[in-house]
This record gives sequence, structure tokens and C-alpha cells, in this order.
Amino acid sequence: MIVIAYLGPAGTNAETAALAYLSWLAQHHSQEAHLCSYPSIARAMRAVVQQEATLAVVPIENSIQGSVAVTLDNLWQLGKLQIQQELVLPIAHALLSRGETLAGIKTVYSHPQALAQCQLWLETHLPNALLVPSNSTTEALQHLNGPSAAAIAAPRAAQLYNLPILASSINDYADNCTRFWVLGTQASTDGTHLSLAFDVPANRPGSLVNPLQSFAQRQINLTRIESRPARRSLGEYLFFVELEGSLQGAATQAALTELAAHTQNLKSLVIIGFYPFTSTPSAKIHLLC
Amino acid sequence: MIVIAYLGPAGTNAETAALAYLSWLAQHHSQEAHLCSYPSIARAMRAVVQQEATLAVVPIENSIQGSVAVTLDNLWQLGKLQIQQELVLPIAHALLSRGETLAGIKTVYSHPQALAQCQLWLETHLPNALLVPSNSTTEALQHLNGPSAAAIAAPRAAQLYNLPILASSINDYADNCTRFWVLGTQASTDGTHLSLAFDVPANRPGSLVNPLQSFAQRQINLTRIESRPARRSLGEYLFFVELEGSLQGAATQAALTELAAHTQNLKSLVIIGFYPFTSTPSAKIHLLC
Repeated sequence: MIVIAYLGPAGTNAETAALAYLSWLAQHHSQEAHLCSYPSIARAMRAVVQQEATLAVVPIENSIQGSVAVTLDNLWQLGKLQIQQELVLPIAHALLSRGETLAGIKTVYSHPQALAQCQLWLETHLPNALLVPSNSTTEALQHLNGPSAAAIAAPRAAQLYNLPILASSINDYADNCTRFWVLGTQASTDGTHLSLAFDVPANRPGSLVNPLQSFAQRQINLTRIESRPARRSLGEYLFFVELEGSLQGAATQAALTELAAHTQNLKSLVIIGFYPFTSTPSAKIHLLC
Repeated sequence: MIVIAYLGPAGTNAETAALAYLSWLAQHHSQEAHLCSYPSIARAMRAVVQQEATLAVVPIENSIQGSVAVTLDNLWQLGKLQIQQELVLPIAHALLSRGETLAGIKTVYSHPQALAQCQLWLETHLPNALLVPSNSTTEALQHLNGPSAAAIAAPRAAQLYNLPILASSINDYADNCTRFWVLGTQASTDGTHLSLAFDVPANRPGSLVNPLQSFAQRQINLTRIESRPARRSLGEYLFFVELEGSLQGAATQAALTELAAHTQNLKSLVIIGFYPFTSTPSAKIHLLC
């Protein structure tokens, strides 16, 4: 039995991604699988490390709001999770309400990421509404009692909870999508992209650029560079890097050996995974394998 | 009259930073100055561009939670704001409540950043409490009616609103501090560090590392590299870079000329400011000038 952890409850974008993965699994594996909802991304990731769940489907990056910090921070801290697969999910936000006109809406509830992704629409159409954050887009629906409350959630949540859509496609950028990683404890053996994290010593000239040059000198293309605080003191950072290449390739191996010499200590380089990659998401969910 | 915009209401960490700057101004300038509270960081920044306010004091980076994305995104989008000064504020979180025991607390309200910075403490001491996000640490205090509600806020907010502190220093990391920038429309002429942002073309080998090499080749030390989505499509990024050096220096000028050739187009390189810098915050607020 494969148990797949995700940030719930039902109706979140993470659940949609997890359902897409479940449907792909059903076509490719005979083993039975089911989803299990967790109240936070961190708890879903820890469930895999603690063997409560087999896999976790977690958001890593949104095309408008950027990295999901809690996912990166837990990947580094837990240190045992490996990327099994990547999914890209187009994100559409709708305004759900029992009210019949925008003019009557006084309060809008949603997850801070969803509120941020609809900021311009809200300023234009509901300039005086109070914006109230919630733990998930689904949790925001609890507040839809009277006609003056609205929530930003996925159109799927409207169907699931039988709530009317007052306005559709309210995200500020049409090309809004979120990249998810399916995480497990087995190392993936096939793919085109490598993701790794490392910790560099602070306040030393070149300490941030030298590690990146290990790749540039070997013509290895970096597709993403993301920094996170090392949590020792202000100005010290970890880097999360994604690159094109095979883990077994000679150039990658040489770059990783050189990189290890630039990092903070021997435990400061973590290979998060080797996986298939998509850079051009289409209107439907991508599942690359 | 100098008007200083900040994310309010009174009692937020942004207000503490703005008050420290106000007190420094009183010692160094004869012009009268006062603070003006705004409901969001974006609104405080826009107030300066729209000449409602002279300056805005905004958080840019926390030592535990990392970059403040809304500040970086608005710096790029507004394009007219320049760093006047930098401040580093130590952050202490306290649990405020009218209740007398931790055992009675069922709900904890706070800004998502504050909840994240006390995550381990909350899991250890209040594992069953419901965590409810709010727009600011001060706004969370509105919910403190009964003994089962608590809020995470600065100890100063407890004094200001006459609320009891149930637990002090509950942040997971003792060395927790936030870096603020004082933003205005005048370019600063004095400093030791330069901050800039640029947009690189996507999906071209070396496009992420080549711009950084413009600095490395000239022995210019980068102290921070931060990426943000370019908001065109997934996988396209802006970079925010901080470096040691003078804007007038020959090496910096040569690096900037070379960098301009690597960026997306001629408008893709923005100098955000030249300012004094601190990397070792102490127990009291730093104001470098």
C-alpha cells in the first residue's frame, strides 16, 4: 500500500497535484495507493521520514510568488528526502461567495499565497475589502456564511463544497503555475535534471560565486539558483541549485567533487534528486516520468 | 516635514524599526518628521512613489525566514525606490494572552512569519493549538478576548496594549533578526555596499552564472544572491545581488557594463542603492550612517 501525504484538506491545489499523481500511479503500478491529508507542508514531509507515508506531494515553486520556503527549509533539515518526480500544475483562482454581487463583499479569506496572486484584481474590484489570511484555500471556505464574505479558492473547491463562483480567473497573471515535487526516501535513478543544496562559509570573498563556477567552467547549465538563510546568523546562506545533467556523467561528478571543497563542511552538500524536468507547462497538468 | 511610511498598526516590528530611524533623524536633522502607518508593505512603498510619504521603512530579510518577497517584488516593479539606509533589528517573540496557563490555550494568532519563527516552540508547548494567521502581529491582538486565545507579538506590543505575557522569548532561534531598508527617491551618495537587480534571459546555457562571473572575475565580493520569478513563465528569474564596493570604483563600473550585456534588455538592470552595511547585529538596533 502506497500512502501519499499532501497539504489538505480536500480542495487544495496540493490535493489536485496529489490526485494527478495517484491517477498516473494507477496506470503504471499495480500497487494500491491512497491519499492522506496533513495540516501543513512540514507535517506531510515529516510523515515520509517517519514512515507514516510512502511519498509526499509538495509545492516547491510558483511562477508568480516564487519558492515555497517551508519546502526548501524542510528538505535541508530533514536531509533524507529524494525527488521521485516533478509535476507542474496550472493555478486558476476563483472568488467563491454566497453573495450575489461584488459590491456586497466586505471580507475576502484565503491562503496568503492566493491573496498575493490576486492582489491587483482585489485592489481593482474590491479596494475596500478586508483581506484575511487562512492556513489553506480550503480552510478559507469555512467563513462563507453570509453574503458579505468571499474566499479565493480553486474552481474545483467550489464543486466539491457546493459553493457558488462569483468571479472566475481572478489571478493577476494568466500564466500562473506551481511546480510540485513527489518526495520519497528512495533515490531516483532516471532523469535529466539534478537538484542539490549546499552550505557555504560566510564573509569570505568569492564564497557565493566560487561554488557556482564549478558548474560554469564545465559548461553545465544551471536552471535555478535559490538562496535560503543558513540560520546561524544574518548574511549566511544555503544554496539550492538545479542543473541539467546526469548524476553519473564525468562533468557532473567532477563539478560535485570541486563543489564539496567550497562548502561549509563535509555534510554541507546534499543531493536532493535526479528527475525528469519540464520548463514549458501547458494548460493541463504535466506528469513526467 | 518628513513622513515615514511603515507596516502598522503600532506595535509591529516595522514600527519599532521606523521609531529607531525617527529617533536617529531627530539627532541628525532639524526637519520635523513623523510616522504614518499603512496596512501592507506594498502600500507603504507605493506611498513614497506617489509622494504621500517621504520615506518607507520596510523589512527586506529575516535571518531565519529569509527574504521578504513582497519587498523585493515591489522594488523591481516600482523601479524608483533607492536605499537610503539599512537597519538591523533583533526580533523577540512573546506569547500574549489573558489566560493564565499554557494548558488552557486552544488558538494562537499571529503573522505567518511569526508563527513560522516559533514553529518548534509551538509544537513542543502547544501541540494541539490551532494556529491562525493574521495580517500583522498587532492585528492578532484583536482576538485576545477569552483565556483560550493567545497571540505571538513583540514584548513592546504587550506594553502598548496592556496585555499580559504568558511566555517570553519563544522564537526557535535566539539569533533572530530582521534587516530593514529605509527607502526614498533620492540616490544615496555614501556607503560600502551596492544592491542591484537584473533580469536574465531564460533557457540559455550559462545565463544564470555568466552575470555573476562579471563580479567574480574582478574580485568583487558578493554578499547576497537572491532570485525571484520574472513572472513571464516558470523557470525565468530576476536576481537581486548585493556586493561590496563603491559605485564610482573602476572595477564596479566595468562589472556593471559587462553585466548589462548579459541581462534581458536595457531596462533589466536596476541599481537599488548604495548604502552602509552591517553583518554582525548586536542586541540593540543598528543604525549605520
